[in-house]
Amino acid sequence: MSIEVDYRFPPNIDAERQANVIAIGQTAGTWNEWFSHRDASLKSHLAEVLKVETQEDCSIATVRFPEANVEGDIASLLTMIFGKYSMAGAAKVVAVRLPEGYGTRPKFGIEGIRARVAVPKRPLVMAIFKPALGLTAADHATILAEVADAGLDLIKDDEILGDLPEVPTLERLAACREVIERVRDSSGRNLLYAVNVTGAADRLHEKARQLVKAGANALLLNVLAYGFSVIEALARDPEINVPIFAHPALAGAMCASPDTGFAYSVILGTLMAHAGADAVLYPAHYGSLPFDATEERKIVENLRSRRVFPVPSAGIIPSIVPRVLEDFGSDIILNAGTGIMDAPHGPAAGVSAFFEALEEAGFRR
Amino acid sequence: MSIEVDYRFPPNIDAERQANVIAIGQTAGTWNEWFSHRDASLKSHLAEVLKVETQEDCSIATVRFPEANVEGDIASLLTMIFGKYSMAGAAKVVAVRLPEGYGTRPKFGIEGIRARVAVPKRPLVMAIFKPALGLTAADHATILAEVADAGLDLIKDDEILGDLPEVPTLERLAACREVIERVRDSSGRNLLYAVNVTGAADRLHEKARQLVKAGANALLLNVLAYGFSVIEALARDPEINVPIFAHPALAGAMCASPDTGFAYSVILGTLMAHAGADAVLYPAHYGSLPFDATEERKIVENLRSRRVFPVPSAGIIPSIVPRVLEDFGSDIILNAGTGIMDAPHGPAAGVSAFFEALEEAGFRR
Repeated sequence: MSIEVDYRFPPNIDAERQANVIAIGQTAGTWNEWFSHRDASLKSHLAEVLKVETQEDCSIATVRFPEANVEGDIASLLTMIFGKYSMAGAAKVVAVRLPEGYGTRPKFGIEGIRARVAVPKRPLVMAIFKPALGLTAADHATILAEVADAGLDLIKDDEILGDLPEVPTLERLAACREVIERVRDSSGRNLLYAVNVTGAADRLHEKARQLVKAGANALLLNVLAYGFSVIEALARDPEINVPIFAHPALAGAMCASPDTGFAYSVILGTLMAHAGADAVLYPAHYGSLPFDATEERKIVENLRSRRVFPVPSAGIIPSIVPRVLEDFGSDIILNAGTGIMDAPHGPAAGVSAFFEALEEAGFRR
Repeated sequence: MSIEVDYRFPPNIDAERQANVIAIGQTAGTWNEWFSHRDASLKSHLAEVLKVETQEDCSIATVRFPEANVEGDIASLLTMIFGKYSMAGAAKVVAVRLPEGYGTRPKFGIEGIRARVAVPKRPLVMAIFKPALGLTAADHATILAEVADAGLDLIKDDEILGDLPEVPTLERLAACREVIERVRDSSGRNLLYAVNVTGAADRLHEKARQLVKAGANALLLNVLAYGFSVIEALARDPEINVPIFAHPALAGAMCASPDTGFAYSVILGTLMAHAGADAVLYPAHYGSLPFDATEERKIVENLRSRRVFPVPSAGIIPSIVPRVLEDFGSDIILNAGTGIMDAPHGPAAGVSAFFEALEEAGFRR
């Protein structure tokens, strides 16, 4: 099996030439008569330019890399397809096609998360603790009780809330776990709380295990800030037997430029889906962040092709629910931050407004 | 102590408004009357817009963040200063000023690496195994013997060479270690070999420990592909008692865009220097990759302010040595890939040509 990458170049770049630079420079690295006695072993590692298509406003070159050059993970893949070449000028990675078995499979994905919350069909509703900073563990529990009783399916920490002395992660979890258990005992519903796991890589992994032992039923990871190698380690660890929610923090630094970096659909779609994420957050194009509808569609397709749950976020409010459902159907997690926590009549009413919107679209609670 | 960040906006953006969006959105996240009873705890976490300067072709806003919002590491810092906001439109992080003690200190840095190779003053000369792929462990040893006898100070794996079945990392190390020991016994010189350490985060860390136990005297890490949290874990581990060389692979994906992402001097300078790297590679502006001389100068300044060894790379050849020395002085590691391995009269002659250039500049071997 091989790995195919589409590179997009602006019209002023000789795409054919650059594709050849990539095919050699990102594999053998050098290729001249000095190494001619190693021809056979070198050739097996060289990438191949499959095609170069010139369009009106750009050229797209497709390069095929041998899978034998990398280690079956995302970090070595990134280094190979764009490591040094990312610094070579205007070029953007707009698609990556990987062998089915490449990378790390999600342990839960859409079906696994649905089974955990016992909601087989309808879109799920997720909230975010707000404000992001300044709440105590008890505040988290109070807020959670309010939204949980209103029927919420999932809640997550804000991505900027780490393991801070005033509100240690384990204390937040302990306080919220009581609420989750009470709701389960009284209503049978099992709310998932994606706890933000942070720290240097070794401590982060150890903390993730501690959290799971302490009853965490989901984790949140800022994959791009901490590293793809970190989510792969968590996803491959049998002790981490809870869904991992991938947050897109920093994605704009790698994806927002028109001519450099990666397409959002590569980072938040293909690579997250092959890195073991069970659900991936991304900015919905209806929302508060500028986002391209086509990229969003590709993200959803790339995630669902591996049964990873798409989580449109940022500016999600009840009034856009019909559009989300029309565009993407029901295998979606509606993730509302201020849309619930800043709702005019309070967070519980905010949750109810989402369920009312779902009911109008024909989905029972 | 506080954290200051300079954000650069294109002229068409209301920088004052965006700076305020950052100051609230990247800290408390939301701020309205619903939370008024939490005013005191929220306010202690809010960032503050220190100034907004409008220049001819851009505006620069300086925002001060409380250090209490983050965990003293690079990953939580990145999430706070640019996590969600990176997806908000045109804005580039052009400078980050951190408290002296923030992050992870390098264990070795300039003085520590100089002590290990016993070269107190002159610039060091580093080579890269080429071709990057297709060599056996024995090939590595053969190449190393040739360049080591010519006086080389350091060598590194190519960043795209992982732990592949045909040339396992531990086998490369074992083969090269024999050469290093022979050279040390015969000449007293101690050549450092920065071995590329790869894998999912947990295995990577375990492998790094194994490599050090097996005699590795330096490590190479693709920090941006594997994650800042990974280098911080390695740098904080007392068992990893060898210098860590940080490779800039992928930096272009985060830094090459004029209007989004980060300045190279932030990622390859400030953040690497606070993440525990002992030496950092970056594209020299004299070389084969397009690079800005001002950014390069800032990288060198940011690294040296923490005594981290700057390693100009990519297109380094003997003829540019005088310019490098004039611009940056002697606390530099000259890192040549094809400049040594593809040298017209072979790798040993390639190494000698660098030492001749240094001798002409007044540095004895």
